[in-house]
Amino acid sequence: MAQNIYDRPDFFEGYSRLGRSIDGLDGAVEWSAMRAMLPDLRGLRIVDLGCGFGWFARWARAQGAASVLGLDLSERMLDRARAVPDPGIVYERADLDELQLAEASFDLAYSSLALHYAQDAGRLFTTVYRTLLPGGHLVFSTEHPIYMAPSRPEWRIDADGKKIWPLDRYLVEGPRSTDWLAKGVVKYHRTIGTTLTLLIRCGFSIRHVEEFCPTPEQIVARPELEEELERPMFLLVAAQR
Amino acid sequence: MAQNIYDRPDFFEGYSRLGRSIDGLDGAVEWSAMRAMLPDLRGLRIVDLGCGFGWFARWARAQGAASVLGLDLSERMLDRARAVPDPGIVYERADLDELQLAEASFDLAYSSLALHYAQDAGRLFTTVYRTLLPGGHLVFSTEHPIYMAPSRPEWRIDADGKKIWPLDRYLVEGPRSTDWLAKGVVKYHRTIGTTLTLLIRCGFSIRHVEEFCPTPEQIVARPELEEELERPMFLLVAAQR
Repeated sequence: MAQNIYDRPDFFEGYSRLGRSIDGLDGAVEWSAMRAMLPDLRGLRIVDLGCGFGWFARWARAQGAASVLGLDLSERMLDRARAVPDPGIVYERADLDELQLAEASFDLAYSSLALHYAQDAGRLFTTVYRTLLPGGHLVFSTEHPIYMAPSRPEWRIDADGKKIWPLDRYLVEGPRSTDWLAKGVVKYHRTIGTTLTLLIRCGFSIRHVEEFCPTPEQIVARPELEEELERPMFLLVAAQR
Repeated sequence: MAQNIYDRPDFFEGYSRLGRSIDGLDGAVEWSAMRAMLPDLRGLRIVDLGCGFGWFARWARAQGAASVLGLDLSERMLDRARAVPDPGIVYERADLDELQLAEASFDLAYSSLALHYAQDAGRLFTTVYRTLLPGGHLVFSTEHPIYMAPSRPEWRIDADGKKIWPLDRYLVEGPRSTDWLAKGVVKYHRTIGTTLTLLIRCGFSIRHVEEFCPTPEQIVARPELEEELERPMFLLVAAQR
């Protein structure tokens, strides 16, 4: 079972203050890269794994999606999502580690920065594969394993004054407990190789793999993003049934 | 044009003393993982990109391969490979950045730790795709981008005494000059995302992606391998036309 960190008041308050919570999709630095990986949404039936406040669900409907099933573990996030009703969107509580979905029911499974909370990615990908129709798409982002692996994931300054990312334990997969917004947030570290090979074993074709890099324009607008060139924060993947 | 480092006497002497040069395939820690990614070789026509001393070519013939074209930039390595003649093996000099191969001529393209010397992976993958028959396989290893990216790719000891790998410049692709066996060895850093997306754009299906991890048995036999768990050295990929 995944940790329900988003319903802890300290975490929820911190998360609610992030740009991606206030400004929605455009407040997420990786959104334009994610959007470029999506198929034409017109008429599609979509499931959103980790829908949060429902920003993607509402945007997808505005693009012409037929329906969106938004799933999240956090009651607080679902409450806020449901505050903006849409006849084509249903929000339900679900744990990604216990997910059950009807077979051959969706054209697109979408997930933004949620899969790293799931302990059993193989089970999850199998469930998603079965719930997609033939030709259906899976598009997701996760925290990058380089970002997640270290014992102490904080910048260091090297002897020559250069900023370095102190990588260790990259090939030791399993839980990582970090203090991001709140103490003791548990995520599951998997290598890129493991993630992709699990997808391939389920039957997915890998369509696109991107280790998100801010654009030069984004760095001009927000110079603090330049440090993201040193190590990737997000892994973006598109796959197809 | 790739750098012909293997024909520099200092590099060649150093390389000739490595386990993989003396003991052949079984002297390479990643060999059993590579072997597991290969199709049944019986009757196959194979091209080996960066064939070195010809260890793989001879092994493939012993497995029943119909023919092997071994390509390498280094005259010294080709000379040594040709010293063990086999009627089914032809060795030729080739630069991976200028490679030309006849269309639809091979069932398998194999490459061990050579592609990181190629500057233009897109051109190379396109050439390999075209030279494979439909259904043909590409199996390769390269240095892992985590291993190759850093400004100073050497272990550090963190404040708590833990060994860390000082990652930086991961998202800055391009040449890296290191002093491995000789000064000024030039390799080309590409992210995993770039490598895989270039393959997919050519038309390849990704079949397997592995960030090589020594097995527990290997670590018992050679305890110095335990540090490889901190960061991956090799990226192994299988793709299919």
